[in-house]
Amino acid sequence: MNIRDSIRTIPDHPKPGIMFRDITTLLGDARAFRRAVDELVQPYAGLRIDKVAAIEARGFILGGAVAHQLSTGFMPVRKKGKLPWKTRGQEYALEYGVDVMEVHEDAAKPGEQVLIIDDLIATGGTALAAVSLVHSLGAQVIGASFVIDLPELGGADKLPRRRRAG
Amino acid sequence: MNIRDSIRTIPDHPKPGIMFRDITTLLGDARAFRRAVDELVQPYAGLRIDKVAAIEARGFILGGAVAHQLSTGFMPVRKKGKLPWKTRGQEYALEYGVDVMEVHEDAAKPGEQVLIIDDLIATGGTALAAVSLVHSLGAQVIGASFVIDLPELGGADKLPRRRRAG
Repeated sequence: MNIRDSIRTIPDHPKPGIMFRDITTLLGDARAFRRAVDELVQPYAGLRIDKVAAIEARGFILGGAVAHQLSTGFMPVRKKGKLPWKTRGQEYALEYGVDVMEVHEDAAKPGEQVLIIDDLIATGGTALAAVSLVHSLGAQVIGASFVIDLPELGGADKLPRRRRAG
Repeated sequence: MNIRDSIRTIPDHPKPGIMFRDITTLLGDARAFRRAVDELVQPYAGLRIDKVAAIEARGFILGGAVAHQLSTGFMPVRKKGKLPWKTRGQEYALEYGVDVMEVHEDAAKPGEQVLIIDDLIATGGTALAAVSLVHSLGAQVIGASFVIDLPELGGADKLPRRRRAG
């Protein structure tokens, strides 16, 4: 089974010319979902991972499953104003303007090794913001895994560390 | 370990008089997170579950972990306009006005048995909307599990079926 085949492509969504990659069909298929989780963690086999950081909102689904698979804690990386306690924020670029991702100040402890999870990496803006936020807490980023890369947007090349499964 | 002790209470958030239950401290604690997942599924041990439906956004974290634990598929229940393909919608009441939750039309198949997951049940509006949406696809709701019940708001009593762990 190739998990690529379980991803639905929706032409011209959300606007003309965009081929939207819809992972809900992957998530709905029990075998594809489990396979995706296995592949997200495979590059880090044997490394100590203390926490999974996942990016709102689709990243939460995969990140929750990855944290369960690895028996780690989970730290949410959320859009501005969504977290209820003391936060650190990091700006990232949008197509027009900037937005801010936030984590709780106690979401990771100094020295913890964190794996970042999201469904898709495009320009890498939110992933890089997540890396900065993990570092701002004194924790280390052991890597970042995504189900889908849009290589023509170059996001994966901007990350400080990169491993590929398969 | 009592998972209740791992939930942080934030007084007067988001407004005066509200005691906000913050589950990020539970999620960040690997043992508490695993324990919560175990307790969410415990009432349904031995029953066939084909799919986990979880409610955006905190429910995604727990629902992803539960689907992984049960080796099922996952169906997201999202706020209006967030899903990219053909959807069914269900209105639910807010404090002032109404909002709409949506699922994809192919998120569950007729006859599938679905477990609904969210972090918290308050008035039950989104949970009941999720029940209606699962039924609208011809699937069955085997139950609904939440980490936190706010019993004074009566949401759990409105659900058609109710089991309690522990």
